[in-house]
Amino acid sequence: NVSLCMEYRIALLPGDGIGPEIVANSKKILSKLVENYALNLQITEVEAGDSALAKYGDPLPKQTLDIINKSHIILKGPVGESAMDVVVKLRQMYDMYANIRPAKSLPNVPNKYGNVDILIVRENTEDLYKGFEFMLSDDTSIGIKVITKKASERIVKVALKYALERNKKITCVHKANVMRITDGLFSRVCKEILKGSEVKFEEMYVDAAAANLVRDPSRFDVIVTTNVYGDILSDEAAQIAGSLGLAPSANIGDSKALFEPVHGAAFDIAGKNIANPTAFLLSVSMMLDYIYSLSKEIKYKHASNALQNAIYEVYKEGKTLTPDIGGSAKLTDFIDAIYSKIA
Amino acid sequence: NVSLCMEYRIALLPGDGIGPEIVANSKKILSKLVENYALNLQITEVEAGDSALAKYGDPLPKQTLDIINKSHIILKGPVGESAMDVVVKLRQMYDMYANIRPAKSLPNVPNKYGNVDILIVRENTEDLYKGFEFMLSDDTSIGIKVITKKASERIVKVALKYALERNKKITCVHKANVMRITDGLFSRVCKEILKGSEVKFEEMYVDAAAANLVRDPSRFDVIVTTNVYGDILSDEAAQIAGSLGLAPSANIGDSKALFEPVHGAAFDIAGKNIANPTAFLLSVSMMLDYIYSLSKEIKYKHASNALQNAIYEVYKEGKTLTPDIGGSAKLTDFIDAIYSKIA
Ligand SMILES: CC(C)[C@H](C(=O)O)[C@@H](O)C(=O)O
Ligand SMILES: CC(C)[C@H](C(=O)O)[C@@H](O)C(=O)O
Repeated sequence: NVSLCMEYRIALLPGDGIGPEIVANSKKILSKLVENYALNLQITEVEAGDSALAKYGDPLPKQTLDIINKSHIILKGPVGESAMDVVVKLRQMYDMYANIRPAKSLPNVPNKYGNVDILIVRENTEDLYKGFEFMLSDDTSIGIKVITKKASERIVKVALKYALERNKKITCVHKANVMRITDGLFSRVCKEILKGSEVKFEEMYVDAAAANLVRDPSRFDVIVTTNVYGDILSDEAAQIAGSLGLAPSANIGDSKALFEPVHGAAFDIAGKNIANPTAFLLSVSMMLDYIYSLSKEIKYKHASNALQNAIYEVYKEGKTLTPDIGGSAKLTDFIDAIYSKIA
Repeated sequence: NVSLCMEYRIALLPGDGIGPEIVANSKKILSKLVENYALNLQITEVEAGDSALAKYGDPLPKQTLDIINKSHIILKGPVGESAMDVVVKLRQMYDMYANIRPAKSLPNVPNKYGNVDILIVRENTEDLYKGFEFMLSDDTSIGIKVITKKASERIVKVALKYALERNKKITCVHKANVMRITDGLFSRVCKEILKGSEVKFEEMYVDAAAANLVRDPSRFDVIVTTNVYGDILSDEAAQIAGSLGLAPSANIGDSKALFEPVHGAAFDIAGKNIANPTAFLLSVSMMLDYIYSLSKEIKYKHASNALQNAIYEVYKEGKTLTPDIGGSAKLTDFIDAIYSKIA
């Protein structure tokens, strides 16, 4: 099997704020996984974000894009104010159309809702994120929301794939009562693809979905939606599950994928060794799982599970948690705790 | 003073589903207020919504619009699937540009967040609600988001007015990091109007706002935002405060205003005498307060307060609550309880 000796090239973007210290410390964990599971990863660190903008006049400098072009995968830390020019640009440039956002509770994280486990599947390439915006006069601006059949179909198919591996239930979120043409198209595609499939599916207006997440998150399993609604609902759902600061994400296309924490650069706590690397590490776990799905080499699945289990165990013990969730551990203590639990 | 004998003409739209029974029973309370406070209201009931659509082929038939044209105020119950063609149309037709949505906790309503008291000021006439949408081909649809300086300015001024009467704090919600032109214009207007004013103001991206409402609603006082984000966040905030089913709202323009519950027609419980009229009655209280602001006749303020106090007292007693919030009272019992408390 040729994939057995396949090497996966990863462009690693530490980003801004707390990004560099999270990434620097997480390398210790990545190295242990590589060693224990004989993973074949070639990691190249590159600059992007506010710091790259300051240094090179471009948040995504050419030398960074050159490395990314030659990589299979992008693994990135949080980026500051230039996030739009980094992450939205990369999503569109490489057509990474599926933004996969688990909102899943961790043990010992204060939570009003019990054990939440929702998967948000967000369309990642179109809607108002296309950037088609204009001033028509000094007083009037317009932005163009683009919804296509093709992009709607492929994202609903991704949601269907995940739903079949979970509880076979999908909520399609849109606002087709108002945006009858654009969201109407999305709604029609949902029905076409999901009716007659093995999953139970319902449609819900985005305002009702925002309220229902608060009222009873357990009614949701997989949510599929367009880009702007997905941006809003995934932050809300992550907080419902416990904390936006703990949420990982995957941006997956047919030829490239990007893994990143949902949280921002948190400049106010940068450099203090108190940042929480959980969202980044869970993103690494999603990345390893993705490599498994590409390669079918079970060792990547094992490594992904080992990392996830180590994280869960540290939370379950509750002794080495960072200040954002009520603990007093340093970033480095937390990393050491996870390191020691990796089987 | 000429306004002392001014009569306020109200077009009353019972709507669909639970609307007619809520409105029919609430009349008893309105009559008592009219009598106790010598209010000068002339109320005309008209048809609108799904039932009007079925009967006349139009959810807003001409005879209804004729009455509305001659009225100062529209008081409406919830409308079914034709809501867009009723309420969004009326908002735009009469330029009722300020959608005022209190998210305020009531006693004895199960609530994870303590006493929430947020006022959402939602722009009500533009954004994707203009309805400018097109199919460019079988596969591609677009919708046009319109943001103007004029509409942004007037809504921010409304927010400022409310903030000055409350805790002098405004959060401007947008997504100007992505929608740089449209939301950028809104953000610029917020800064122009609020910098140097008496209020403390902050800007927040809509995804962060959706998470922060869950994390700590007490950090918000007045939120001002564009139409689509306001739709989503106001439903979320109402649920955070206790229940979307209890949220009233006002749609205010320079020459007409519409008052309505935020909730929908709830066809599943219609006709069972168990619907909760709180959101409608709180909307009536907002209407009376609005008439006070027009007329400066203090009796309308007193009537508004009397109704609001009666509602709060019934909730505080907690003996006569409807099933949606864990009670076993009928709609008619609840109405009677409020009726008996009106001073
Ligand atoms: C930083 C921003 C451009 C980005 C987005 O809006 O997609 C972020 O909020 C996210 O959800 O990944
Ligand atoms: C019914 C619908 C058209 C309406 C809206 O989206 O404005 C409703 O959700 C609301 O918030 O009043």
